[in-house]
This record gives sequence, structure tokens and C-alpha cells, in this order.
Amino acid sequence: MSSVQAKLPHPNMLYRFLGNSGLKISVISLGGWLTHGGHTDDDIAFATLKAAYDGGVNFFDSAEEYAGGRAETVLGKALKHFAWDREDVVISTKLYWGRHDDLSLGINDVGLSRKHVLGGMRNSLKRLQLDYVDLVYAHRPDKHTPMEEVVRAFNYLINTGQALYWGTSEWSAEEIADAWRVADKHHLIGPLMEQPEYNLIKRDRVEVEYANLYPKHGLGLTVYSPLRRGILTGKYSSSDNIPADSRAAKEGSWFHDEIVNGREMLDKVAKLRPIAEKLGATSGQLALAWVIRNEHVSSAIIGATSVAQLEENLGAVAVVEKLTDEVVKEIEDVMGTKPTGPPMRY
Amino acid sequence: MSSVQAKLPHPNMLYRFLGNSGLKISVISLGGWLTHGGHTDDDIAFATLKAAYDGGVNFFDSAEEYAGGRAETVLGKALKHFAWDREDVVISTKLYWGRHDDLSLGINDVGLSRKHVLGGMRNSLKRLQLDYVDLVYAHRPDKHTPMEEVVRAFNYLINTGQALYWGTSEWSAEEIADAWRVADKHHLIGPLMEQPEYNLIKRDRVEVEYANLYPKHGLGLTVYSPLRRGILTGKYSSSDNIPADSRAAKEGSWFHDEIVNGREMLDKVAKLRPIAEKLGATSGQLALAWVIRNEHVSSAIIGATSVAQLEENLGAVAVVEKLTDEVVKEIEDVMGTKPTGPPMRY
Amino acid sequence: MSSVQAKLPHPNMLYRFLGNSGLKISVISLGGWLTHGGHTDDDIAFATLKAAYDGGVNFFDSAEEYAGGRAETVLGKALKHFAWDREDVVISTKLYWGRHDDLSLGINDVGLSRKHVLGGMRNSLKRLQLDYVDLVYAHRPDKHTPMEEVVRAFNYLINTGQALYWGTSEWSAEEIADAWRVADKHHLIGPLMEQPEYNLIKRDRVEVEYANLYPKHGLGLTVYSPLRRGILTGKYSSSDNIPADSRAAKEGSWFHDEIVNGREMLDKVAKLRPIAEKLGATSGQLALAWVIRNEHVSSAIIGATSVAQLEENLGAVAVVEKLTDEVVKEIEDVMGTKPTGPPMRY
Amino acid sequence: MSSVQAKLPHPNMLYRFLGNSGLKISVISLGGWLTHGGHTDDDIAFATLKAAYDGGVNFFDSAEEYAGGRAETVLGKALKHFAWDREDVVISTKLYWGRHDDLSLGINDVGLSRKHVLGGMRNSLKRLQLDYVDLVYAHRPDKHTPMEEVVRAFNYLINTGQALYWGTSEWSAEEIADAWRVADKHHLIGPLMEQPEYNLIKRDRVEVEYANLYPKHGLGLTVYSPLRRGILTGKYSSSDNIPADSRAAKEGSWFHDEIVNGREMLDKVAKLRPIAEKLGATSGQLALAWVIRNEHVSSAIIGATSVAQLEENLGAVAVVEKLTDEVVKEIEDVMGTKPTGPPMRY
Repeated sequence: MSSVQAKLPHPNMLYRFLGNSGLKISVISLGGWLTHGGHTDDDIAFATLKAAYDGGVNFFDSAEEYAGGRAETVLGKALKHFAWDREDVVISTKLYWGRHDDLSLGINDVGLSRKHVLGGMRNSLKRLQLDYVDLVYAHRPDKHTPMEEVVRAFNYLINTGQALYWGTSEWSAEEIADAWRVADKHHLIGPLMEQPEYNLIKRDRVEVEYANLYPKHGLGLTVYSPLRRGILTGKYSSSDNIPADSRAAKEGSWFHDEIVNGREMLDKVAKLRPIAEKLGATSGQLALAWVIRNEHVSSAIIGATSVAQLEENLGAVAVVEKLTDEVVKEIEDVMGTKPTGPPMRY
Repeated sequence: MSSVQAKLPHPNMLYRFLGNSGLKISVISLGGWLTHGGHTDDDIAFATLKAAYDGGVNFFDSAEEYAGGRAETVLGKALKHFAWDREDVVISTKLYWGRHDDLSLGINDVGLSRKHVLGGMRNSLKRLQLDYVDLVYAHRPDKHTPMEEVVRAFNYLINTGQALYWGTSEWSAEEIADAWRVADKHHLIGPLMEQPEYNLIKRDRVEVEYANLYPKHGLGLTVYSPLRRGILTGKYSSSDNIPADSRAAKEGSWFHDEIVNGREMLDKVAKLRPIAEKLGATSGQLALAWVIRNEHVSSAIIGATSVAQLEENLGAVAVVEKLTDEVVKEIEDVMGTKPTGPPMRY
Repeated sequence: MSSVQAKLPHPNMLYRFLGNSGLKISVISLGGWLTHGGHTDDDIAFATLKAAYDGGVNFFDSAEEYAGGRAETVLGKALKHFAWDREDVVISTKLYWGRHDDLSLGINDVGLSRKHVLGGMRNSLKRLQLDYVDLVYAHRPDKHTPMEEVVRAFNYLINTGQALYWGTSEWSAEEIADAWRVADKHHLIGPLMEQPEYNLIKRDRVEVEYANLYPKHGLGLTVYSPLRRGILTGKYSSSDNIPADSRAAKEGSWFHDEIVNGREMLDKVAKLRPIAEKLGATSGQLALAWVIRNEHVSSAIIGATSVAQLEENLGAVAVVEKLTDEVVKEIEDVMGTKPTGPPMRY
Repeated sequence: MSSVQAKLPHPNMLYRFLGNSGLKISVISLGGWLTHGGHTDDDIAFATLKAAYDGGVNFFDSAEEYAGGRAETVLGKALKHFAWDREDVVISTKLYWGRHDDLSLGINDVGLSRKHVLGGMRNSLKRLQLDYVDLVYAHRPDKHTPMEEVVRAFNYLINTGQALYWGTSEWSAEEIADAWRVADKHHLIGPLMEQPEYNLIKRDRVEVEYANLYPKHGLGLTVYSPLRRGILTGKYSSSDNIPADSRAAKEGSWFHDEIVNGREMLDKVAKLRPIAEKLGATSGQLALAWVIRNEHVSSAIIGATSVAQLEENLGAVAVVEKLTDEVVKEIEDVMGTKPTGPPMRY
């Protein structure tokens, strides 16, 4: 589709059209999954938001679910504080994180019912102190709500000016194709973008399952966990090195298990370092550049607990053009995660 | 369709999707047919509303016709007083009760004309002190207003954010199917739910007439009079027992006639008591549990003139799982009201 | 179609559905063509409006063109003054009177362009001090504006809540059918009602040209000049009798010509008096009752320069049921204006 | 299509329908391309706007791009100052000037994305101090934004009352036809008008490329540079005559090149003067009248740096009727710019 690149306005950032739309977003964007309103102090959140903006990031990702709404609140305060031109930033939020049985939420505060889509949007906009978001996502599929109700509810948000585009997150290709079927039938607006996980360890969905959705529906991607929650930076590659305050250090968590039990993968990750060093990059920059290199990825969403970490990530942009076919082959041979089999058709 | 059950958030309540939608409502709900603003003092109305909410009821049913609008006024005051989260409650109202020749109303205050649907909604929202209702019903069919005008008027309410879903009450299957035909033709939203009478005495419409509407259009039901105006509690089963202040005591009313002339039915009802007692339940709980057991019933709407009566009703939820196929057979053999003949097709 | 009659709320008035809609209007209604804001003092306008309302009239007709907008202003003041329930009255206005070359108006203050339909409605609502009108008419066809622009503009008024129904005035059957063709193609709302002249002298359009539009599109009629500008009251039947202050007395006007040159017709009108007297009615009441007798006429719009004149007109309602087939034949034989030839097909 | 002419309201101005719409605009209109907020003082801008209005001009053209938004600001101030009836004037603006790589603008301040169309309109209306514009143009095509997104975004502006009609500027016939294809498919409103360059030197697009769009889609034209940036006035026809403060005097500009290198064309222009003089007109009036003579041209947009220049331009209206077929042939023989080949089909 139209994944052309522009180098404006910031000289060290790349920008791409979000799928088959006219909206341009920076290839690296800042999310607030575990940081804004959560693990991170507001001061650090403000500092990383400013550093990101100053570094050419124009897309800031949020969700009603992140830190129970506090991520939106922090982002809203920052937007007000910095007073950036509303036209210059692309703000997103997401509705429904995918657990109908979440005991901490009201029974209709979950799902993609018209009630929650409208009510969730109303509350998100209040927290964000905005009249509209640029992007609104169905944060997870909802197998209990009819697709027509979902598509109509998101179209209501667009028709009433509360959002400019809508998309999905972690939907199957079949679900996305079904949403388009409903949209086409009723002359409604279909989902523009998906937000899947995508990185050197998890490739199948983006490269195989969605393959036909790019040419057919112009699907755009804003991917999360491009560094597989830090694993691809190599910082967990030796178990001695696990920082005491990192997520991996918490025993009993699934993430701890992935680190402890995933030695084979961590050993592979360790082998990325010499490749990165040859390019004058860190392992993390190499892994992030590899994600961005995929033309279907409009943006890779990173989290950042410090300005230094953020700036290292932004450095990945300069690495993209160094990823020759040879280097890519070298990386993929090390990882051995390239999907096999033909692209799926929907 | 998708009548899955959830036990959230209140542990003693069941919740179901309203027909083929993503909206979840409690299987027992509170209506204001004869109580709010009518027979019952406001104090009692407030107390029963609170007890219902505390017992897990999230759906409160109203209508412009109930007590000439005062039911809505009382409900509106209570919602303001208790300040429940708007996302946590499902509020409904209904427009036009079905008498074009009602002398107490203005000539255009009846019917389902665009004028009355818009004007009635405007006045209902004022009385309820709300920006929108979750559900709005066409309280009766209107054979004088073209179906396209009706469907378009209810879609206007949804498009302008005054209601989230629309449905019907006491419409024939043919009328509901016709509304869907119009909606499909013009890409509009069809009626989601019906509000019929349904109980151990009156079963035909729900079980035979509507049979095909459940799979075809995802029709959901919120049924009224699940206890047949108290008859199924057994309190009228001996004519000696008719409470002096009950509706049945008023001579000349149709309800009095049903009690006095319906001895055969009352004798059957009396036989429900031993079945109920075996389950540790009252006759009313048994009858209500039997209604809820029907998976097409999203909610059974009860009235309550006291907190005690309400709490007895809520006890029916625990009886549902005791209704084994054997117990159900026993009940239905006693009543002899099971419809015969094949389901109707629309 | 559904021209059922109701006798509510006023016992001496008849009400009919407006064409194939659920809106009910009184068979006699009050217009402000030459009176409100024009020939008549505001005091008299207020008095006749009140007398009409008290006599069961619920439909008040206006137009941006009448008295250069002052008819709307007077009606708006009266509605505010009397504070009638907005649901109890049906208010109309009309946009564009049909002269693109009217030198007194701005070049875009005429026609049915989107600019004038939206701008005209905005200004009419200001003069009427209302949020919406019940009915809005295209006061004349506009051969210069594409039909799709016209139909979309009136649908905009309905979609934005500024009007409930739209219709036409003095459009040909071909033009009305064309508007329906556009509406059907784009799933829009077609024109509900027409406002033609209709009386014992001018019958062709209503009885022949529109014949097929009643069953096919549910066209309703609100007719003007049911008394042919007073001629059918018989007051002009002797030239000696022409009141000095009547419209007919002004030499050079086309109306003067009609009176002076139309002696043959006036002689016929004179013969209506004995028929009327047999029924205990005036000639005017007879002629008006004859108009109302046509089931396609939802309402006959009268003007009134005095309360006495208005009350005489209202008396026509009681005459309708006296119009037996024999009496009607007698009337029509006298007038000799019955159209011949088959109904037209559109 | 419906290029009828009217002489109202100003006796010396001609008015035409804008393409296949009911909107009437003066055949000469005033734009602010290089003047309002730009080269010209605000005092002069106000004076020319008033002189234009007084001379019967009812269409004032603007764009977000002109003088970086200041053209809109000046026009907005003037509209407020003169307090002309909003119904009497037709105000336009245009979104996106066609350079995705404009370094002076934010990355999403360009293009026809939904974000920019909605955001640009919001900012234009603020500068203009208006609730709506009559016309909004896509100032250039945007090959990077899908046509469906563009068409839907402009329809959003119309549906929300921010604009009455939408059109294009400098789009190819293929692009315009594609916009109509999308609009037809989804029952949306297609582009009404195009704003191309059109004059005695540049004729192909209007006369050949668009030929089929007039009958098929009712395309209307508001043309710019009817005098080819002053060249057709003859003021540059001798290089000695180039005014020191004119655009042509600035060395290195493309316009300077056109003047200096285009001697052959300038010699032809010089030959227009005797033809003009025979008609009692200036060369500029002759060239402008020739543009207006094309019935597909609803309006020719002029700029004016003085009231005198504006009034000379308005004088062209009177010349139109003097352009007999013989005179036109004489003009076209001199210029030799008549397109050859058959009209294009789209």
C-alpha cells in the first residue's frame, strides 16, 4: 500500500502513512502501557514525552486499560502542560482490554457493546482532556458482541467527531476481514489499523496471518513490544544480569518464566550483539530497526522508563538504512524465527 | 444466540446478554409499572431501588406511560440521589402505550409518529434527568404509522445519542420481522429486544410465535409479569386469602375477574407449592426461576411494593439451577400450559 | 392510505393522519398567507389563533414568504404568548416562493439550493422562536436546482432535528415522483405532503394529476384556498356586493379580473346557497365541507380576518357528514367542474 | 448543464449557477491569492472587497494556504466589519495546497487525510470567524490519501454543517471521476466544482480534459488566473514596460522567466489591443470577457491590488455580449492556443 516515507518534520525521524490512510505517524512512537500512570513517576513520564516529541515522535499511544485509566490522565495533563499544537500530535486510545470476567470492572465496563464503546470513549476523552482522539482501537476482539454492533459503534465515534480513525488490537485476520465485510455491506468505515505484537521472536501474525489484509484492506500496523519486553535488548541474556527492579526479576510472573525457562532464546539474542556492534548500534537498536524495516509497520510503539532509554530507542531510526539484505539474513539466521508456509488468505 | 451467563459483579445474581448484543443485564430487573410514582410511596420506591441495586440488579425499566410519567420522575430522582455510575446501570423507557383514543393525552402524544417518538423521548429524558437511556422501546405497535417512519425515528434517537438500543413491546412476530425488513433495506438498526408478557400461564408468544426471531434476528427478551400479576405466588389461590389492598380485591376490574373466574387455574397454582417447598423455595420463586430458565429471557422484570417482596424475588436466582428436567416436567404437567404445534416462521 | 378519522381531542373537530405518516392534524387549519403580519392587525391575528386553537385546530401554517417573514414573526410571538404545549401543535413553514427573479430578495435568498434551504430554515426558526418545525415545505418547485440537491438539503433539516417531515407545494406530480426516485435511490426520506390549491373551482391537480401518488407514495395534502379566495362564500356573486375593502375591489389586480370577468362562475356559485341552506349551512361552509370530504385532504388551510369568520369556517366540520352522495351530486352538477379523463400515472 | 444567467441583484453583473447546483455566483469574483494578508495592505484589501461587493460580486475566494492563513484572517475581519448578510455572500476556502514536503508546515498539516481536512477546516473557520463556508475545495489532489477517505472527510464537513458544497482545484479529470465513483458507491455527495487555471493561454484542461465532466457530473468551474497573472493585460508585452514592483520584475522567478523567455506569446498578446479597442475595452477586459463567455465558467476569480484595477476588471462583464463569433475567431486566430483533438471521456 502507501507506506511511503517522509523525513519531515524532524530530520532524524522517519514518518509513514498509517496503512491506507493519509495520516502520517513517526515510525517510533511512545506508549504508556506500563509506564504512564503506572510504574513510572509522572515527572519521568513528562520528561520522556517531551524528549520523544523533541526527537520527532508525533504519535502517543494510550488505552483506557493502561494503569486503570491513569495513563490517559497523565498523557492528558502532559498535552495540556506542553500545549503542543493539536494538529501536530496523533493521540490514540483503546477500549476494552479483553477480559469479560475482570472482577475489578463493572459488568458493562468490558466488551465492545455499543454501551461500552460510547461510555468508554466519553470517559477516556474526559481523562485525556480532549475533544477527540485521532485513533481509537478495539483493544481486543469481543466474541460476545455481534460484529455489526461493534462496527456501528466505532462509526458512531467517527460520525460524531470523537475519533478520526478506528482500528483493532490483537484481532485475528478472520475477525478483521469480518469487520470489513460488515462495513462494506452497510457503507460504513472499516478498521484502518491493527496493533499486534511484533518483534524478532514473534513474527507469524504480522508476516503470515495478516499478509492478505495489507493489499486487500490497506491494513496499517502500529506494533507493540518491538523489543519483546526488553528481552531483545540483551539485558536478560545472562541471568546474572537481570536488574533487580526489572519485570523479569519478579518470581512467579509469566515474564519471569519466559526469562528463566527461555535460555535457548536468550542465547540467540546474545548473538545479536556482535552484529549490532558492527553497525555501531546496540542490540536493542538493531532489533527495533529490524521491526521498522517492515514496510507494513507504520509505527513501533515503545515504552520508556527514562529519557536515556528513550533516546537509545530513537537511535534505531538511523540503523534502518544499514540493514542490508545481508545483515538481515545474518540476523534471521541467528534467531531462526522466520515463519514458514504460505501467507494466509482472508 | 449468545445467552451466555456471567456471575459478575454480584455473586448471587446472573447476567445475560440482551439478545444478540454486547449489553449485559441482570436476569431479574426492576420495573415501575404500577409502583414507582403510582401505588407506592416514593420512600418505598427508593428503598426497593436501592435493595435491587445492592442485590445485583443493574437494569431498571420505565415507560413514559407508567403513572403518567411519574415513574420516570421517581426513577430519575433516585438515580440522582444514589449517584450510581452511569456505566453501571441500564435504564430504559418506552414510548406510546398503545391507545390512539386515550382521552387524557394530546392527539399527537400517542402513536409512533416521528413527532411523538422525538417529542416523547425529549420529555422522558427531562423527567429522568438523563442525557440518554440505554434502551428505548416502542411500547406497543402502531398500525397507523408506516413502519419506515417508526424505524427511522428510533434510529434518529440512536444516531443523536439519546438511546443506545431500541426494541419493541407486545409486537407480533410479523411486526418485528417487518421492522427488520425496513431496517435491512435502508441499512438502519433493527429492533434488538421485545418486552412481552411471559410466565407459566402465558407461554405461546415467547415459545411459539417468536421462535424463529431468536436465531434469525437475535431477538432478546425482557419479559414482564413473570408472576402473572402475583397469581403465580399462590397468594390468590384461595379466595379467602385475597388481601384487601391487593389489585385482585377491586371488584369490576378484569384482574378481579381473572381471580374469581379463574378458579381452575388457581387450583393448579396451588399445586406448585409442594414442588417449590421440596426445593426450599416459595411458589413465586419457583415460577420466577422457571421464567429465567428460558435462555431467550435476558431479564424478567418484577415490580415490588416492599423490600421484603423484592428480596424474595431475588431469591429465585438461586432456584434456577435446581430446576432439573424432572422438576420442570413436574411443574409443566401441573400447569398444562405448554404450547403445542410447531414454531412459527417469520 | 390511512385517512382514518379521530374526534380527539376537540369534540367538534375532525383529525386526520397527514398522508402516510403517524402525524395527526385537524381537517381545518389556520394559515397566515395574507393575514398574519400582513393585512391583519397583530391583535386580530392573536385572537384568531386562540379561537382556532380553542376550536380544536392544531395545525398552523406559515412560510418565509408570507408578509416578508412577518407572518412567522407574529406566529412565533403568539406561540410564546399562549405557551401551548409544543407537542400539541403542528407548526409548518415553507421555503422559496418560486420567483428566481424577485428583485426584493438577495440572489441566493430564492430557490431550493442547499444554501437557501439551510439559510432559510435558520432564519425561519429565528423568527418563529422555535427549535424545530413539524413540517417544512419546498414552497415551489425549482427547475434550476438539481433534485438530488433539494432532497438532500431537506433531509439535512430532518437529520439535524430542525424539521420532522418535509413536503412540497404546487409541485407537479412528475416533480414529486422524481423527488421520490432520488430519495429511494439514496435511502433518504421522500416528501410526505403537498400543498396545492383545491376547491370546487380548481379540482384537476388533486383529483387527476396526483391520483397515483396517494397509493404509491402515501402523499398527504394540506390544501390552500379551499374557498377560492372567498369566491365560494358567495360574497362576490353579485358585483353590487363586492366589499370596498376586499381584495376583489382593487382594480387592475388579477383577482379583480377573476371577479369581474368570471360572471359565469359567480352565477354558479350563487346557486350553491339554496343547497347550503337546506343543510342549515352557509355557502362557505358547504364549499369547505366539500373539500374536507375528500379523504386525501388531511387539512384545508383557511385564513381569517376575524374571529367570526374563523368560527363560521369551523362550522364546516359539522356539515361534512351531511354531504350525502345525493347532495354532492347536486353541488357538482351546479358547478360543472368535475375533471374528466383517467387519473394520471407517475 | 444549468449555466443560466441572471442579472440580479446588481445590474452590471452577471450571475451563474455554480455547475449543476442551485447556488448562484457572480461571474467575476474576488480572490486573495497574493493580495489579502499578503502583498497588499489590509486597507487596500478592505477597499477592494467593498468595491467588489458594491459592484455586484457575491463570491469571495480564499484558502488556508494563501499568505499562510492571513488571507482568511483579513477576509474574516472584513466580513465582520462590513456586516454583510451572510445569505448574500458566498465564501470559500481550500484545504491543502499540494506539497507534502513543505518544510514550513507540520507533517499532518498537509494532504487530504481526514485529520487535515477536519483540522484544517476547524482552523480556517476560526480565522474567518464563521460557522460555515459555502464552498470548500481540496486545493490539490493528494495521491497519498485514498479517495474514499477524502470523499468521506469532505462529506463530514457537509453533514456537520461546516460547508455547503465541496469541490476540487487542479485535479485531473480522472481524479474527479474517481471521486464521483466513490461518492456514487456509498451514496455520498460528490465534488461540485473545480478551480483550474483558465485563460487565453492555457485552455486544454477546461476545454478538452474536463469536457465530459460537465454533462456527466454537472461540474462547475471557478477559474483562477483568467489574465495569466497579468500577462493578458498586455502590461508585459514590451519588456521596457515591466513595472519595477510587479511580479515579473523579480529575476530568477519562474514568472520572470515566462515573461522574458516568452516573447513570442507576449507579441501575440500585444495584438489583442487593437481588437479590444474596437470594442471600447482594454486588453485585460477583452481577455477576461473571453473567459467568462465560456458557459462552463461559473466565475472567474481575480485578484486586485487597487480599487482602480478591480473596477477595470468588473468592466469586462459589459464586454461579454460584444464578443460575437467573429470577434472570438479574430482573438483565437491571434493567440493560436485553441486545443485540437477530441474531448476526453471519463
